[in-house]
Amino acid sequence: MSHTVGADPEPPSGPRSPEKPRILLSVPAAEADAFFPPGTRSALAALGEVTEAEPGTLHDPEAFRSALTGVHVLVTAWGFPRLDAERLALAPDLRFVMHAASSLHWLISDDFWQAGVPVSQAGAAMAPAVAELSLSFTLSLLRRTHRYDHALRGGADWQAARGARKAREIRGARIGVVGASRTGRRYIEACRALGADVRVHDPYLAESDPLAACAATLPSLLSWCDVLAVHAPATDETAGLIGADEIASLQDGCLVVNTARSSVLDMDALFEAVASDRIDAALDVFDEEPLPTGDRWRNLPNVLLTPHIAGATADSRQRAGRIVVDEIRRHQAGEPLEHAVTRQAMESMA
Amino acid sequence: MSHTVGADPEPPSGPRSPEKPRILLSVPAAEADAFFPPGTRSALAALGEVTEAEPGTLHDPEAFRSALTGVHVLVTAWGFPRLDAERLALAPDLRFVMHAASSLHWLISDDFWQAGVPVSQAGAAMAPAVAELSLSFTLSLLRRTHRYDHALRGGADWQAARGARKAREIRGARIGVVGASRTGRRYIEACRALGADVRVHDPYLAESDPLAACAATLPSLLSWCDVLAVHAPATDETAGLIGADEIASLQDGCLVVNTARSSVLDMDALFEAVASDRIDAALDVFDEEPLPTGDRWRNLPNVLLTPHIAGATADSRQRAGRIVVDEIRRHQAGEPLEHAVTRQAMESMA
Repeated sequence: MSHTVGADPEPPSGPRSPEKPRILLSVPAAEADAFFPPGTRSALAALGEVTEAEPGTLHDPEAFRSALTGVHVLVTAWGFPRLDAERLALAPDLRFVMHAASSLHWLISDDFWQAGVPVSQAGAAMAPAVAELSLSFTLSLLRRTHRYDHALRGGADWQAARGARKAREIRGARIGVVGASRTGRRYIEACRALGADVRVHDPYLAESDPLAACAATLPSLLSWCDVLAVHAPATDETAGLIGADEIASLQDGCLVVNTARSSVLDMDALFEAVASDRIDAALDVFDEEPLPTGDRWRNLPNVLLTPHIAGATADSRQRAGRIVVDEIRRHQAGEPLEHAVTRQAMESMA
Repeated sequence: MSHTVGADPEPPSGPRSPEKPRILLSVPAAEADAFFPPGTRSALAALGEVTEAEPGTLHDPEAFRSALTGVHVLVTAWGFPRLDAERLALAPDLRFVMHAASSLHWLISDDFWQAGVPVSQAGAAMAPAVAELSLSFTLSLLRRTHRYDHALRGGADWQAARGARKAREIRGARIGVVGASRTGRRYIEACRALGADVRVHDPYLAESDPLAACAATLPSLLSWCDVLAVHAPATDETAGLIGADEIASLQDGCLVVNTARSSVLDMDALFEAVASDRIDAALDVFDEEPLPTGDRWRNLPNVLLTPHIAGATADSRQRAGRIVVDEIRRHQAGEPLEHAVTRQAMESMA
C-alpha cells in the first residue's frame, strides 16, 4: 500500500519541483484518519509531495528501500522498523524524522544519532489526555465506582454492593504525585481545581519551580497520601522506584493510579497489596503488554483496568497531527523546532 | 437500643435542667459514626441531653411513644416512621425535626405541616458529593473506561478491548445539563474548570442568573450535547421529562449521566438506546431500587452502575452532621434556620 494523497492519484507527469520535498506518512492505516483529518491532510499536502506506506509492510528491506528512496521527511507513529545503520543506508535522502507519537526508544538507534538527522515528536499532544485519564481514575477510585460497578455486574445484592462506607471526595483528598512531568503538571492543575491537597516528588524539581512549594521526599509522600499517582517516565533511574518496601509504606486504603509506565512500580508487590484488599488500583500500564487473556490482574474486584490507552483520544490524535504539520513547516522554513529530541533528552523520556 | 451519649451513661441523678432540651438521635447505627464523629458528637451533646434510638425499632407505637416522650428535637436520616397524626400524638413535646439527609417526602405528612413543627434538612451536605460522582461518571464515559474495564475483565483480547477509537476528552466536550439545581451548579463549575462547553436547561432560571448566558431549550440541548447530565429533582413536573422522543433526539454516541432520580427519564427508552449500542450511560438511580439481582441493567457492557450512592461519601456525612449541630443551635438561639423546608419547597424537592 503506497499512494499519493492530497493530489492527483496519478504519478506526477512533469519533473519534480525541487522545492517540494517528499514526505512519507507511515502511520498505521487504522489511525491515519484520526491523526490527519481532511484539514490537517491538506495542510500536510501543502508542504510536500505526500506518499503513504503502512509501517507493517516496511520491515522487508526491499519494501523499505522502495518506499524511502527520495524521501526527505518521514512521519512515524507505531510499528515502523527500527532506524539502525542498515535501514538508514536505505534512506539516503532522509533529512528529518517527525514522530507523531511519544516514545522513541524503539525507533531511534545509536546509529541514528551518529547520522545526525534531526528528530521531533508529538508527545505534547498526549499530555492532556493522559492527565485526564489519571484524573478520571482518581475520581473513580475515591468514589469506589469500580467496586460498585463490579459488584452490581457480578450479581451482588444491592445492599451488599453498597456495603463499604469509605467513598471519599477529591476536595481535601491528599494526592501524592510521583514525577513533575508535563503530564504530572496537568494532572496537578486539574486536581487542585477540584480542591485536592497535592504534594509532588521529583528529584529534578528546581527551587524556583512553582511546584517546589509542595515538594516532598518519596518516603514522606508515600506515608502521607490518600492517592498515589505515577507520572514519572520509564528510565533506568525510575525502574523499581516504588518497590515492595515503598508499597508497604502506603496507608491502608491508599489508592494507586498509574497511567505512566509499569516499570516505576514493583507490580508483584502491588498485586499482593491489591489482592489482599489493602489497596485499590487503577492501571493503564502493565509489565506484560498485551495483557494476556488469563492475566491475574483481570479478576480483582478492586482494580480498574484500561488497555494502555491513556494518550489515545480523538482529541490527542488531532493535536498530534497538527504538531506534525507545524513541525515539518518549521523544519522547512529553517525555524527552530519546538519538539526536537536530543539523544540526552531521549534517555530521560518515557 | 437506647442510651445516653456524650455524658455519664447512668441516668441523671438530679432534676433535669430546664435549659437542656432533649435531643433524640435516630440515625441507623451503621451510619451514626459517619455523621457524628467524636467532635460533632461533643458539639451535639453540648446542646442538650442526647439519647439514641435505632429508627428500625420505632415502628412499634409503644417503642415510639417511649422513645419520643419528652423529646424536643428529633434527628432523623433513614428508616424512621412517617410522621403522621398518630405518631405526632405520641411525641407531644416535639419542637423541631432536623433531618440529616435529603429527601423528606417519606417522612413528612400533611398532618405534620398542620402541626406547625419546623423541619430542616441537610441536603446541602450532599450536593458536592453528587456533583463529583456526576463528574466522575462524565469522565469515565468520555474516556470509555467502563467499556475497556468490562472488556478486559471479561477476558477480551487486548487489541479487541482497545478497538473503539472514540475516546474523548472533557476539554471542549459539549455537556448538556438538565436542572440548574444546587448539584447541577456544582457540576457545571467543575466541568468548566476542566474546559468543557456547558449549556443548561431549567425553566425556572432567572434572567439575572449567571447561568442564563448558557441556557437552552430542552430540544436544542438534547440535539447539541455530547454528554447529557441530569440534575433535576423528581417532581410531578419533571416526571418523564426526557421521554422516548427526547432520547431519540440525542446524537449517536451521546453519553447519559444520571445521579439525580430515574423518574426524569423514560428508563425503558433509555435501556433500548443503550442496549442497541447507540448510547452509553452511567447510572446511580433506577426505577426499581434495590435493583433486583437479575435486572436487565446489570449486564450491558456500555453502562456504568452504582447503587444510589451519589450523596454518600465520608465527607458528605460529616458535613451533614455539622449542619445538624449548627441548625439545632440556631433553633435554640431563636436565630433563623439556614436549611428550613416549607411545605411548598418540599413539593419542588427531590
